[in-house]
Amino acid sequence: MADDAVSVTAVVEAVRENRLWQRHMDIAAIGATGRGGVNRQALTPEDGQARRLMLEWASELGFTASVDAIGNLFIRRAGAQPASDPVVAGSHLDSQPTGGNFDGVFGVLAALEVLEAANDAGVVTGRPLELVVWTNEEGARFQPATMGSAVYAGALQLETVLASSDSDGVTVEQALAGTLKAAPVPVRRDFRSPMAAYVEAHIEQGPVLESTGNTIGVVTGIQGLRWFQVEVGGEEAHAGTTPRSNRRDALAAAVAMVTKLQALMFDESDTVRFTVGRFEVAPNSPNTIPGRVVFTIDFRHPDQDVLTRLGDRVEPVCRAEAQDCTVKVVETMNAPPTEFDPDVRDLVRSAARRQAFRHMDMTSGATHDAKFMAGLCPSGMIFVPCESGVSHNEAENASAADLAAGARVLAEVAIRLANR
Amino acid sequence: MADDAVSVTAVVEAVRENRLWQRHMDIAAIGATGRGGVNRQALTPEDGQARRLMLEWASELGFTASVDAIGNLFIRRAGAQPASDPVVAGSHLDSQPTGGNFDGVFGVLAALEVLEAANDAGVVTGRPLELVVWTNEEGARFQPATMGSAVYAGALQLETVLASSDSDGVTVEQALAGTLKAAPVPVRRDFRSPMAAYVEAHIEQGPVLESTGNTIGVVTGIQGLRWFQVEVGGEEAHAGTTPRSNRRDALAAAVAMVTKLQALMFDESDTVRFTVGRFEVAPNSPNTIPGRVVFTIDFRHPDQDVLTRLGDRVEPVCRAEAQDCTVKVVETMNAPPTEFDPDVRDLVRSAARRQAFRHMDMTSGATHDAKFMAGLCPSGMIFVPCESGVSHNEAENASAADLAAGARVLAEVAIRLANR
Repeated sequence: MADDAVSVTAVVEAVRENRLWQRHMDIAAIGATGRGGVNRQALTPEDGQARRLMLEWASELGFTASVDAIGNLFIRRAGAQPASDPVVAGSHLDSQPTGGNFDGVFGVLAALEVLEAANDAGVVTGRPLELVVWTNEEGARFQPATMGSAVYAGALQLETVLASSDSDGVTVEQALAGTLKAAPVPVRRDFRSPMAAYVEAHIEQGPVLESTGNTIGVVTGIQGLRWFQVEVGGEEAHAGTTPRSNRRDALAAAVAMVTKLQALMFDESDTVRFTVGRFEVAPNSPNTIPGRVVFTIDFRHPDQDVLTRLGDRVEPVCRAEAQDCTVKVVETMNAPPTEFDPDVRDLVRSAARRQAFRHMDMTSGATHDAKFMAGLCPSGMIFVPCESGVSHNEAENASAADLAAGARVLAEVAIRLANR
Repeated sequence: MADDAVSVTAVVEAVRENRLWQRHMDIAAIGATGRGGVNRQALTPEDGQARRLMLEWASELGFTASVDAIGNLFIRRAGAQPASDPVVAGSHLDSQPTGGNFDGVFGVLAALEVLEAANDAGVVTGRPLELVVWTNEEGARFQPATMGSAVYAGALQLETVLASSDSDGVTVEQALAGTLKAAPVPVRRDFRSPMAAYVEAHIEQGPVLESTGNTIGVVTGIQGLRWFQVEVGGEEAHAGTTPRSNRRDALAAAVAMVTKLQALMFDESDTVRFTVGRFEVAPNSPNTIPGRVVFTIDFRHPDQDVLTRLGDRVEPVCRAEAQDCTVKVVETMNAPPTEFDPDVRDLVRSAARRQAFRHMDMTSGATHDAKFMAGLCPSGMIFVPCESGVSHNEAENASAADLAAGARVLAEVAIRLANR
C-alpha cells in the first residue's frame, strides 16, 4: 500500500473532467426525450441499457460486478486486503419521467471516475473500492422511492417491494427480471454485506451552493420524510343530470382535502415541504362525475417532532373533508431525519479545504440512498451546485468543472477511507 | 300508402320486446368490461365492430346505408315517395370509458326496431324511415361531445374536429379512417341533407321517471351547456428542496381554481350542474412539483342568462387564482338551451296517451344529438326510465318492458310523421 498522502494526490490528479462529462452525455443519450432531459424510469428498458453500459465500462477497466436480489448493482476495484470491507460510493441511474441528466447519474459516474483514476494513478488501496447503482431511487414508476437501498439495509422487505406495481399493473418482480436480462450479472450479492463506509456525491437540487458561490456542500444530514397515498371513492354519474346534492364526487372531495392539507402544512418560516405530485382521476371523462381519485402526499421537515405532529394529522384531515365519499389513507414511507457520520463529514470538509474548493455545511432537502446506508456504516454525502437549483426537470444542468470538483473530493475521501 | 291509423297500430304491435332486448345484449358484448358495462369509446375498434353489426342487421333486413364525412351512419328503409325527405330516428353507439349498456344504444336499436316492425307489419310509409348512428356523442375520447351531429348541422367545422386528438395524440381523422375501414359504407351522405323530422329515444339518465312512476318522458327541451378546458402551466421542481415561496406549482393553482369555481357555481336551488370530470397532471410523479395541469369544466343550466353570467366568470376566476402559474382557458363548447318542436312533443304525448303509458313532460339534463337536429327540422325526444337514475356508470340499467314501451311510442310518432 502506497503512502496515503501520495496516493491521494495521485488519484485526485488523475480525475479527468472531460472523461467524466462525456460519460454523463453517454448516459444522457439513454432515454433522452429530445427536450434536453431524460425519461429513464426504474426497471424500464432504458434503465437496463444504462446498466449495461456501466457493466461494459467496468469490464474494460478490469472491475468485477455483483448484483443483489432487488437489482442493486455493485462494481468492485480490488484492494490489497481482498477480504476487508469495501469503501462504497455511488447513487442511481433511474430518472423522473421528465428528469435531468445529472440527478443520481453524477454520483455513479463520480464513483466510476474515482475507480478509473486509481487505475490510472497505479494506486493500490488497502480496502476494495466499490461503486453502487441503487435500484429505483426516484420512486416515479414504482413506489416507494429509494427502494433498492431501503431493501439492502433491511428497512423494507424484499417480498413487499417485488409485489409493488406501476400504473399499468406491472410488478417490480416482472420489471426487474427484464432489467437483469438486459444487463446480466452472474455474481450474487447479499443484502447488508458489510461496508467500511459509504459516500454519495450528488447535485444539490437546490439553489444554495450556487447563490452563495460555493463549489462543495458538506452534507450534514437529510431532512425527514413521510409519504402518503390517499384514495377517494365516489360514484360515477352523469354530469348533466345529477344534482349537486345527489353527487358523491371524488374529485370535489379530493380538492377539499388538498386545500385543507395546504392550510395545515403552511408555516411562516417556509421550512415544511408539502407536495401533491400525483393526482389521478377515474374515469377522467369531462361529462362523468369522477368516481375515484388517488393522490400522493410528499411531506418533509428536518425536525422529527414536526414530522410526527403534522404527518399524523393527514388522515384525520382527509376524513373530515371526505364529504359523502370513502377515503383510504396509506402511509407509504416514513423516514426520520438522518445525521451523517461526523468523521465522514470531517473528511469531506478537509478534502474540500485541502483542494481549495469553497465549501459549506448544509442539510439535504432531498432524500438519497445514503439515508439507508447511514444506519449500516459511517456515511456521508458531497453536493455540487446545479444551475438555478433546478432539478426533477429536463432543464437540470451542472458545470463540468463542478462535477469534476465533486469527483476529486470524493476521490480523496474514498482513498483515505480505503487506506485506514 | 295504408290508412294511417291501421299502419300505426300494425307497426306498434309488431315491436318485439325480446328482439329489442337481445340486440341490446349483442351490442353490450362489444367492449364489455366484465363488470357489467362497456368501454366502447368513439372511433375505437369496438365502435367499428358495433357499427359493422348494425350494417349486417340492416343488410339482412333489406335496408340501405350511407355515411357522411364525419362518420355519421344512416340506414334507410325506403318509402312510397323515395324523393321525399326522410323521418329520422337514432342516437349513438359510443360510450363513456366506464359506460352502461343503454345510453345511446337504446335510441339506435329502438329506431332499428321501428324499421323492422314496419317490415314485419308490411307497412309502406310515404316518406322513407331512417335510422342514424351519430359519431362521438360522448366526447370522452375526443372533444367536443355530440361531434357528429354538430358537424352534420354545421355548428362545427369538419376540418376543426378532424384535427382534434385524444390523449395519445391520435386525431379524429386517423381514428375515423380506421373505423370506416372496419365498417365500410360505399354510399356518401351530404351534411345538412334535409330531414322531415328527427326523433330520438333515450334513457332518462336521471331519477325522475322512476321516482314518479312514469314510463314515458315527453322531452320539452335540453338545458344549455358550456364546456371549458383550463391549462395551468407551472414549473417542475424537486419536492424536497424547493421552498413554497419559490414554487410555481400547477396543481396547487388548479386546486385553488376549482375551489373558487365551486363557490361561484353554488346555487341554493341546486339547478346549476358544475363538474370537473377530467384532471390531468404532468409529470404526475409523487416527488416532483407538477409543471402542468389540464382540467375540464362541464357547466349546464336551463336558463341562458345564468349560462352567460356564470360561464363568463370562469376565465376571470381561473386567472385570479393562477398564483405564479400561466393559465389558458378555452371554451370548447357553448350550447344554448334547446326547445323541441311543439308538434313533435304533441305527437309523443298523444302516442303515450293512446298506448296507455304513464307519461310526463320534462326537460333533459343531459345533452343529446337531438339538440343540433332541432335547428334543422322539427325534432323531439322520448325518455324511458333507468334504474335509480344511474348513467355514465357500468351499473346503468333499464327494463326490457320500458325499452319496448319507448320503441312503441317512437314507432307511432315515426309512422305518423312519415305518412304526412
